[in-house]
This record gives sequence, structure tokens and C-alpha cells, in this order.
Amino acid sequence: MASWITVADDSDFSLRNLPYGVFSSADAGPRIGVAIGESVLDLKTLASEHVFDDLDFDSTTLQERNLNAFAALGRDATSRVRRRLQQLLDKDTDLGSVLRDNHERREKCFLPLNSVTMHLPVAVHDYTDYFIGLYHAQNSADFLKKGSDITQLIPSFWDAPAAYHGRASSVIVSGTPVHRPKGQSRVNGKTVSGLCQKLDFEVEFAAVIGKSDELGNEIDVDKAEDHIFGFVLLNDWSARDFQQNEFTAFTSKNFATSISPWIVPFEALEPFRTSPTEGGRALPDYLTQKETNSAYDIPIQARLEVASQKYQASNCNTKHVVFSFAQMIAHHTRGGCPLRPGNLLATGTMSGPTRPEQGCFLELSRVGAEPYEMAAVNSPERKLTRTFLEDGDIVEFTCQVRSSDGSGNVGFGSCRGEVLPGK
Amino acid sequence: MASWITVADDSDFSLRNLPYGVFSSADAGPRIGVAIGESVLDLKTLASEHVFDDLDFDSTTLQERNLNAFAALGRDATSRVRRRLQQLLDKDTDLGSVLRDNHERREKCFLPLNSVTMHLPVAVHDYTDYFIGLYHAQNSADFLKKGSDITQLIPSFWDAPAAYHGRASSVIVSGTPVHRPKGQSRVNGKTVSGLCQKLDFEVEFAAVIGKSDELGNEIDVDKAEDHIFGFVLLNDWSARDFQQNEFTAFTSKNFATSISPWIVPFEALEPFRTSPTEGGRALPDYLTQKETNSAYDIPIQARLEVASQKYQASNCNTKHVVFSFAQMIAHHTRGGCPLRPGNLLATGTMSGPTRPEQGCFLELSRVGAEPYEMAAVNSPERKLTRTFLEDGDIVEFTCQVRSSDGSGNVGFGSCRGEVLPGK
Repeated sequence: MASWITVADDSDFSLRNLPYGVFSSADAGPRIGVAIGESVLDLKTLASEHVFDDLDFDSTTLQERNLNAFAALGRDATSRVRRRLQQLLDKDTDLGSVLRDNHERREKCFLPLNSVTMHLPVAVHDYTDYFIGLYHAQNSADFLKKGSDITQLIPSFWDAPAAYHGRASSVIVSGTPVHRPKGQSRVNGKTVSGLCQKLDFEVEFAAVIGKSDELGNEIDVDKAEDHIFGFVLLNDWSARDFQQNEFTAFTSKNFATSISPWIVPFEALEPFRTSPTEGGRALPDYLTQKETNSAYDIPIQARLEVASQKYQASNCNTKHVVFSFAQMIAHHTRGGCPLRPGNLLATGTMSGPTRPEQGCFLELSRVGAEPYEMAAVNSPERKLTRTFLEDGDIVEFTCQVRSSDGSGNVGFGSCRGEVLPGK
Repeated sequence: MASWITVADDSDFSLRNLPYGVFSSADAGPRIGVAIGESVLDLKTLASEHVFDDLDFDSTTLQERNLNAFAALGRDATSRVRRRLQQLLDKDTDLGSVLRDNHERREKCFLPLNSVTMHLPVAVHDYTDYFIGLYHAQNSADFLKKGSDITQLIPSFWDAPAAYHGRASSVIVSGTPVHRPKGQSRVNGKTVSGLCQKLDFEVEFAAVIGKSDELGNEIDVDKAEDHIFGFVLLNDWSARDFQQNEFTAFTSKNFATSISPWIVPFEALEPFRTSPTEGGRALPDYLTQKETNSAYDIPIQARLEVASQKYQASNCNTKHVVFSFAQMIAHHTRGGCPLRPGNLLATGTMSGPTRPEQGCFLELSRVGAEPYEMAAVNSPERKLTRTFLEDGDIVEFTCQVRSSDGSGNVGFGSCRGEVLPGK
């Protein structure tokens, strides 16, 4: 599986990936594209030239300013488009005249990735943040003096995927800077109003909903994956001092949530399936999923960039979940709650069992009590110490997985954001 | 202030009110209208006939399928339109030729209210539910064995408006039935999966956001009211057995939230201002509001309709808040969280100090321990007893206030929903 487009060995964007995003360029506004190698392929232009007209779907959805309408078509349609794109870009394509050998069209449809500006790929109208990472939950219970038995904090932790609703309006695309927020903390039993002193990141993984579901309907756990369009990396920025003072996460998290610019299609992650943590345990029927490899084994690197030097903050993995996305969807819709295209369902922090695998400073610095030392990525003798984030720090999540058949890498680009001083 | 349209003495829809809604009729799809007396005035048709062309705003916003774009214009524009409508409908209008005396146009633009179907007036992309009702909070703390001192439950209760994010996709318009949801409860320490056994209503009042606010911006508390387009009644349906088993409100509330079909404009509630509960206390600067009459004195009746007989469940009032909407907005945006047109900011349950003023069965039946007896509205000797809602019960919220100058009633129509059996 190789393309006639050059794809470097360390590129996130192989022919097996083909993630969707929304980009603009100097000469035209936001439009839909897929990434391959160092290029973005403009799907709006391709669609307007009738390249997909024989595929029996509404190709005007590819001419929109975001991916909601296209994702809403559902897997049957989006898979047909994905296969056509792989066919067009394959080095052995039998459709060479459509794109590979059509130099005028290639000129129009390919742009260098480093020349475009990325935008939020979907309009997010609801964002649900789960709390299904085993080690993050155990550490949280421990910090709250509930012991390491998570059921002391959340009695139903093993029975249903716990979640809260996040704020949709402040979901931002990678690259958007984040101002240190103002809010309320509690110091010596008194309210203090001012800038956040304990700003944190959280390494998360999220599904983007495609096909919608109507009010009053319940989605069967074995059909739930059909509603997933793709996946993004997500940074759930958190103000820990505000969070410790709040009823439930509100101003401590509503100021920003970053996602990767590229949505990796559901199909691209098939080779990386694994079983969730404690996956075989007894659950109510509506959460009992036939597919046992329902989670994903995808390492995510969290790094801090300071003065152009990257430091390794955490090495997480999306496999440390006690429920699958299908189970998250089945529980979400159990009472009839509608899912809409572009909705985000995030896992919560994807910490692993050891300290270098913990996905936020809350854990890494033990709620700020033990400053955490990080090594520079390319010169491990250089160190950086943090308890929480400082102004000017750039937080970057990346991941890259390679399928065992050698057919190429899959990655999300980076999910990045700089901490700017408070206003 | 009287109209040439007949407005009955008990109508919610006087010339002083003119609430906005979205309706459809047998011959045409959803469009924007205002209610007056027993009629709805079709603003889409009026706008398409250039009746507002001299008012210096984008009148195509009145030709949309919901009110988001119109509300987004902000108070300056929406007030001009409101004044024009009041002028056109005034019995002493000097614009009689435009509507009053133009019988062909009247024929086209007025429809009987009882002939139209109401739709969700705005697309809701974020819904924030606060917890600022003093008595509801005290009762909740009491039930959770935290005593009646609310700061034992939420230490910052008096310092900042507590809130959580609700689910936007399941906000529904009055009249939409609600199926009894399925979910998880905890019985004798074990998870039980099945139909809700403790289905409840919550009497709430909500602001609908008009003018938006961008990421990173903080809204000044003294300018915050400029972002409110209007107000609705809201029923935050709740599954108490699921709620008692959850980390934070998720499946216990995500199945449905009903709102009244009519959005009462901000201006229409000016005569009903009052001060919030404990309104004069010291607060951080960003929550210190110059306007002291920043809450509203609006009684809301909650009734259960069973076999066509209405029973008085509760007599609430929107004045029992410890923060104003302006303070809710200032705190919401303190860290830079964007507000968008159509966003809902709800107060939480508006219970009063005595039992007949409690705004949900959780309080009225003391978490189900003491069945609550309700009298029929027109024959008080007939009684109905409930601990929680039963299938077939219709929950209806209404309110009507009359300005002291006798210029007419203001109401929201009813916020109604029938409980259907679980699926």
C-alpha cells in the first residue's frame, strides 16, 4: 500500500491514514481536505470537478466549511469516499487519468501542508468528557484521600462509563494559544479571585460522531461503532485551583479544550485494536459488547516545548480504559439522548500505571507537592522541572503508530497550544 | 398600551410582551413569529414584504428557521424591531396602512395560535445549568446529610454561581413527550439496570443568549445583560435514582430538558425586577454589579395534569436566587469561555422557603420518603398523591405577571410535557 505521492518514513500521513481536516490558504477560505505526506488534497475542488459523482452520496457535503454534513452521511458513504481516495492516490492506481496524470488538476488540488492554516474540523455542539482511565481515576481517588479503591470515589466506576458534559463553545483547534484563565480559588478557607496558579493539561483521546441518533432512541452497543466518524487527540486544559473550589468542573475547564486538526478515520485505526482494561468482566446486557478488541493501543507523547527545546512530560496510551467507545455511546444514549454529527466523546486522562506514563501535572507532580523533572527529548542530560504549566510553555501531544503489515504510519498531526499570560 | 388585536384579560400575550417563537402551519414550514392575543404574527412574511427595511439591521435574519441569527444581532437591533412591532400593533398606530388597515397583508401574516405547531425557537449549542436557588440548595444539602449550611456541600456557594454543563442535544420544545428513561441505579450496594423509578421535574428559569462573545474575552458584569436576548421557562427532567448513582449529572439528566415555546424579550421583564436573595453581600469586584434590582419577581406554577384534571404541585418564584443572570454571565466568561447565540443559562430549581413552594418532587416528597398530596386547581377537595412522576402524568409550568401600570400581562405560554412509558 503505497502512494505516488512521496510519504516520508516518519510522516503521520500515509495512504493508510488519509485523515480529514479543514484548511484555508492565502487564496481561499476554509475547506475540507485530506493529508498525505507533506501535502493536503483539496476535496472541495475535487468534488466540484465531479470526481466522486459515481459514488452515490451527496458530494456537496465535501464543499461545506466543516466536516459535519459529510460525517453525518454515515460509514457506508464515508468509506466509499475513503476507498476512492486511496484508489486515486495508490501508485498502482487504475484511475491515473483522474488525478495522478492530470497535471492541471494536481496543480489545483494539492497544497503544501506547511502553507495552509488549519481550522476546527467540525462544529462541536456537544462535548462529553468521560472518566474511564483506570490509573487516572485511581490517582484522583488517592489524592482525594479516598484510598486507591476507585469505588470509594465513584461507586459505579466499574458498572458504567462515568462522564460529565464539557463546554462545546471553547473547543479550539491545535495551534490556538490559551490565555492563563482567571477564576476563583480557595486559600485558607477564603475565596481568592485571580489568575490560575495551577494550570494543567490532560492527555485525552476522543471519538467524533458521524451518523446522528434521534431523541428517544437507544443505540445498540454492537452497532455503536457505526456512529463514529473518526478520532482526534484532545487536551482538556484544566485550572486545578479553580477545580478544587468548584461544585463540578465548570470555570476550571470551560476556558479551552484543544483538539488535533486532523480527524483520523475510524477505518484507519482497525489494525491497532486491543481489549480494554479488565475487559472481560460482567456488565449489564446493554453494555455487553461482542467485539472484545474494542479499545485501541495507541501511545500518545505529551511534551513541553520551552525555548525551542522539547521535554518529555508523559508517555500515555489509549488502552488504559475500562470501557470502549461503543460502551460509552450505548450508555450515553441509554435514556434516549440524541447524538449529533461533530459531537465529541473523550476518554478522560489516559494515564498509565507508572509515573512517567501519567497524563497530567496533577498526577506527575502529586497535586503540586513534588515538582516533576523532565528530560529533553534529544539531549536527556538537559532537564526541566515543573509543578504546573508556566507562561510561554507550549504543550504538544503527538502519536504515531505503524501497522504490522508495514503499510504505513497513522498519526493525528500534533495537538499543540501555547500558554499565554493572563489578561 | 393596547393593541387593535383583541387581547383577552387572561392572555399571556399582551402588546407589552410580544414573545418570539418558531412555528409551522399546514401550508408552510418553521418560521419566526411573535405571539399577540390568540394570534401569531408571521415575521418571515412581514420581513419579506420589506416592512423593516428602514430599521438598519439585517432583516434576512427574520427569514431563518430559528432565532439564532436574529438574537445574535444584539439588543440595539432587536429592540428597534420590537419597538416597530409595538408601533404596528398599537391601537393608536400612525403606521396603520402598513398592517392594521392592510387587510390582504393581515390575512397573510396572522394565524390563529391554536392552528400552529411550535418548534424549538433556537438551536441550542451549549446549555449551562446553575445551582443558585437558595432553598433548593439548602434542601439538597440537608438530604445529603450535610446539614442546612449549604457551604458544607459547596464551600464556594456564596462566592460564585455554581454550575455544570447540561446536554444541549436533548433540549426540546414544550409539548414534546418524554419517555421514561432507562439507566443504572444502585440498590443495596449493587447496580440495577432498568427503567427510572424516581422520575422528577425541576422548575427553572433560563436566559437565552443573543449577542455572542469571543474566546478569551471576559464580559463585564455591568454590560452582561446586553448579551441576553430573552427568557424561557425550563423543565430540567431528572432521574433521581440514576443521579444518586452518578459521578455528576449525566444520564440522570441528558434524556430531556423542556423549554417554553416563547422567548420573552429581555425588555418585557423590566417592570418585574427585584433584588436577588442576600443581594447586598460583599463579592469579588468582577461580580459586583451596579444594578441592585438584578433578579426577577416572577411566580411559576407547576401543575400535574392527570385525566384532564390539573393539580397544583408547586408555586415557585424566580426571585429565590443568590446571583443574577449578569453575575452568571460574568463568572461564565471570567476565564474567556465564549458565549454563543441560543446558549441557555438556567437558574437551577427555583424552590421557595415553604414546602408548597418547592420546585421538584425530590424536595416535595423528601426524596420519596413522604408522598406529597396535591389539590386539584379548580376543586381543592380532589387530591392527587405522588412521590415521583407516573406514566401518563403531564407536567406543566406556567406563569403570568401583570405590570403595575396595567399595560398588560407577560407570560411564556406553557412549558409542558407528558411522561410516556419507557421503551
